[in-house]
Amino acid sequence: MPKQVDHRARREAIARALWRVAEQRGVPHLTMREVAQEAGMSLGQLQHYFASREAMLSFAMDFAAEQTTLRVGRGLAALGDAPHPRDVLRVMLTETLPLHPDARATSRMSAAYVLEALHDDALRARARDGILHGRDLVEQLIRRAVADGLVPADRDPVAETHLLLALTGFTTLLELGAVGPEEVLAAIDQHLDRLFTGPA
Amino acid sequence: MPKQVDHRARREAIARALWRVAEQRGVPHLTMREVAQEAGMSLGQLQHYFASREAMLSFAMDFAAEQTTLRVGRGLAALGDAPHPRDVLRVMLTETLPLHPDARATSRMSAAYVLEALHDDALRARARDGILHGRDLVEQLIRRAVADGLVPADRDPVAETHLLLALTGFTTLLELGAVGPEEVLAAIDQHLDRLFTGPA
Repeated sequence: MPKQVDHRARREAIARALWRVAEQRGVPHLTMREVAQEAGMSLGQLQHYFASREAMLSFAMDFAAEQTTLRVGRGLAALGDAPHPRDVLRVMLTETLPLHPDARATSRMSAAYVLEALHDDALRARARDGILHGRDLVEQLIRRAVADGLVPADRDPVAETHLLLALTGFTTLLELGAVGPEEVLAAIDQHLDRLFTGPA
Repeated sequence: MPKQVDHRARREAIARALWRVAEQRGVPHLTMREVAQEAGMSLGQLQHYFASREAMLSFAMDFAAEQTTLRVGRGLAALGDAPHPRDVLRVMLTETLPLHPDARATSRMSAAYVLEALHDDALRARARDGILHGRDLVEQLIRRAVADGLVPADRDPVAETHLLLALTGFTTLLELGAVGPEEVLAAIDQHLDRLFTGPA
């Protein structure tokens, strides 16, 4: 295996170990020492791949975003050619929420990352950029749906985009067991049905 | 001052110190030692009021919920007699989101509490009960609005309730600066306008 590929593979394995620590033990355990242990390496070996805890967290966060993008991509591929924008948004939302183990691991890590980001300008800018990128995708999709007559023309695409992003708030309700996956899907479908009230 | 009142006042002062630590320094700093320092007392004095970090966090969380309820109560009182349920929901949502400093302090503490609760069954049950209590209030309000013809009868009150709770997801977007307060209020208004499409 070329050295560059191996380096990347090791970093991904460390990121997955970090996700497991976040999911199973909780945020206070997200130290380089505990992640190294979970990844089955020494602290020194871990430091060869990440110079700091921040660098490790940022990579784990970027990798989580990539994996979510891959899951969304697979979900979209399953919709076939020219999927309805309602279905596209449904896949984007449901793959972001902790409705299955992969998404739960990355969702817990994201929550931890956001809390850290509030007190770290570099992490905060990175987290914000990630959200703004997602927002732009959703907004483009809604604007096109309005142009295609699938969403009523009197809807404000910006406000609709923000409402869809805010539905990631289901994360906390799911994590605490205040709502179940079926209830979340029913609510998301109700919201999307109301958004797409034009001809299908 | 009677001893009982003084005890309560000291516990509230400690809770406010904890909120400040959560807001200004971040979650990893929510230790009994740092909170005692922020509250201007010794660790021993703090332990007189709270036997454990969990007890301290739970009290701070309950106190935050009480303060939010008070803010909502003041907002509702300002609406006068027999307020429209749309306005009631708007006050409940906006006083829960970090749109002003008081709400931001408690919102950051809540986020920290939720992360802890994922790995602590007692905290998790407490957090879930709080959410379920809020959910019941919102659901009653929506059912009455449907009965009064203010919300179309074909809306599912349970799904609508969950959608409103999920809008607390604006918290993260606000905290990271991905959306501004004006944009959040515009989106909430758009959501409520669409829910209340019956005669006003």
